[in-house]
Amino acid sequence: MPPSMQVPRQVRIALGDRSYDILIAPGLLAQAATWDGLPAAAAALIVTNTTVAPLYAARLRAALGTRYRSVHEVVLPDGEEHKDWTTLNRIFDALLAHGCDRKTVLFALGGGVVGDITGFAAASYMRGVPFVQVPTTLLAQVDSSVGGKTAINHPLGKNMIGAFYQPARVVCDLDTLRTLPDRELSAGLAEVIKYGPIADLAFLDWIEANIAALLRRDVDALAHAVRRSCEIKADVVGQDERESGLRAILNFGHTFGHAIEAGLGYGEWLHGEAVGCGMVMALQLSRRLGLIDEAFAQRVTDLIARAGLPTVGPALGAERYLELMRVDKKAEAGEIRFVVLEGPGRAGVRGAPDALVRQVLADCTR
Amino acid sequence: MPPSMQVPRQVRIALGDRSYDILIAPGLLAQAATWDGLPAAAAALIVTNTTVAPLYAARLRAALGTRYRSVHEVVLPDGEEHKDWTTLNRIFDALLAHGCDRKTVLFALGGGVVGDITGFAAASYMRGVPFVQVPTTLLAQVDSSVGGKTAINHPLGKNMIGAFYQPARVVCDLDTLRTLPDRELSAGLAEVIKYGPIADLAFLDWIEANIAALLRRDVDALAHAVRRSCEIKADVVGQDERESGLRAILNFGHTFGHAIEAGLGYGEWLHGEAVGCGMVMALQLSRRLGLIDEAFAQRVTDLIARAGLPTVGPALGAERYLELMRVDKKAEAGEIRFVVLEGPGRAGVRGAPDALVRQVLADCTR
Repeated sequence: MPPSMQVPRQVRIALGDRSYDILIAPGLLAQAATWDGLPAAAAALIVTNTTVAPLYAARLRAALGTRYRSVHEVVLPDGEEHKDWTTLNRIFDALLAHGCDRKTVLFALGGGVVGDITGFAAASYMRGVPFVQVPTTLLAQVDSSVGGKTAINHPLGKNMIGAFYQPARVVCDLDTLRTLPDRELSAGLAEVIKYGPIADLAFLDWIEANIAALLRRDVDALAHAVRRSCEIKADVVGQDERESGLRAILNFGHTFGHAIEAGLGYGEWLHGEAVGCGMVMALQLSRRLGLIDEAFAQRVTDLIARAGLPTVGPALGAERYLELMRVDKKAEAGEIRFVVLEGPGRAGVRGAPDALVRQVLADCTR
Repeated sequence: MPPSMQVPRQVRIALGDRSYDILIAPGLLAQAATWDGLPAAAAALIVTNTTVAPLYAARLRAALGTRYRSVHEVVLPDGEEHKDWTTLNRIFDALLAHGCDRKTVLFALGGGVVGDITGFAAASYMRGVPFVQVPTTLLAQVDSSVGGKTAINHPLGKNMIGAFYQPARVVCDLDTLRTLPDRELSAGLAEVIKYGPIADLAFLDWIEANIAALLRRDVDALAHAVRRSCEIKADVVGQDERESGLRAILNFGHTFGHAIEAGLGYGEWLHGEAVGCGMVMALQLSRRLGLIDEAFAQRVTDLIARAGLPTVGPALGAERYLELMRVDKKAEAGEIRFVVLEGPGRAGVRGAPDALVRQVLADCTR
């Protein structure tokens, strides 16, 4: 690995007048330059959660205090099971209680849940205020903070209520990954691994060679994983911001994964764990459709296992899986649409016979 | 008035790839051509309320039944006091219960509340599905259904949570105005009158000459009022979709009006009644700022009264008015921004000394 100072430290998301940069480096939270050039405003609101607040909120508040006259803070409960309207409304309550106007800048300090919910609050408060993503989990740094998908869950489906709404900047301070629990590190690696089979076999090789370094949190390995993941995501999102086609490939493993999350109850498995296991199912579906061979499916499955992720799904029953997947956002006229590998390194979206899906579920659940 | 068949029956909102037409004529609901060219989908969802459903839902359902495999319906409680998250969530519940996918087209059949709430549901369901405005009140036909402002209320402020999200079409069937209660007809006339002093003195002349015809629901007079109102709104929205400047002039009377609505409790006064009275206050503020003379202020106030609208506000107390107006979306860093007349036929946005606003409130409330 080259030293982290010599690699590019930012990735550009090119979306015309909604373009923005992803900054990736250790120590960014405390560096003044990190916050240069953001929209001017009288007030900022930091949205974080009970786990992250004691670790990083003071650092962010100090950095923002020199730039905004008032810096408010709202601390949400931690966990996917709180990604709902009640929690979202706490942000609106805070904004209105503090008299925040339509120039107020929101800062999402936390993982994917904080980022998704804060982004939707920013999209909706007074019909839209600016926001900045400050992801503190690997999963949020490599995936959820980038690309403008914001949402809350509905009891009948994950991320069903939300907006495409781009942040003004994404700040990935690699130091924040030091405090991440092992289980969440593994969950983040699921989304890193994802980019290999769908888009970049060289990156898949690299992850296989560096999985041990990633698991021991080598900062150069993490920097490369975050940067390359963001580059691939930036490329896809730049071509299809609102998921009218190509962007759906980023949901590899997510159709099965969302069913696991909803079926077990949100928060039981971490999102990344469900995606890891969902990828195993999507690999097997691709194999049964004759698109990839068993060797490739096994190779990626082995890597998922080495990352510390589950490769066998919960036994919800095939009918329950199918029912949950029919409300997936990719479904059309009741037909489930799966992201499959069209071959190693290439993905697409297809329907599949229920019988085949039942076979996959029988193989991959216990 | 020329016969309605000879005047242009549609107005274009020019917003690039978000452009759409407003159709204006009697009998549109039942005419097949009204619904040609909308996005293809398996399902449609009609969102309406308990007042409008028995009058027009069957007609719309029949028209849509030939175009969509399933036509679902959700009937909301009627009234501004229901423009909240609980009611919005009934739309999401219906969409998910029916397994509606991201191509589903929503139809907002009703007044401003149904349009605003359905528009926000369409903006947010699966991060955005198409929707069509089918306004059945004069207020919705001349103002709220056009231009893509969607929202729900928060206990601390009106329209605080929403999105800029354009409909695919607006269908103003003038026949629906026949069943409108007199009080709601007057409320709609407040928004019609608004366009005169802010943008078009010839239109103000025309409204003065035709107020009796409008009140007796002459269909040609209504057609002209709706069309000219939509033309002015289309022109303003085409220049400033997201209200970064010019568009704010369309909120003439609304800063005071929103305070009346919130102060009395939503639903006590109709939105148009509050706007009518709010315009009287805004006229007096403009006069006290030396921007218009008393004769012009009185001329417009007389027209508001002739339309059957209140011209004296409720005695909430000046401090309560000021407190409520500070959370207005136009406020910046705690300073209230008022839409005032810069002269007859021209509007702008300005701050004003609290003392002056107190004088206006003392003059205009009882």
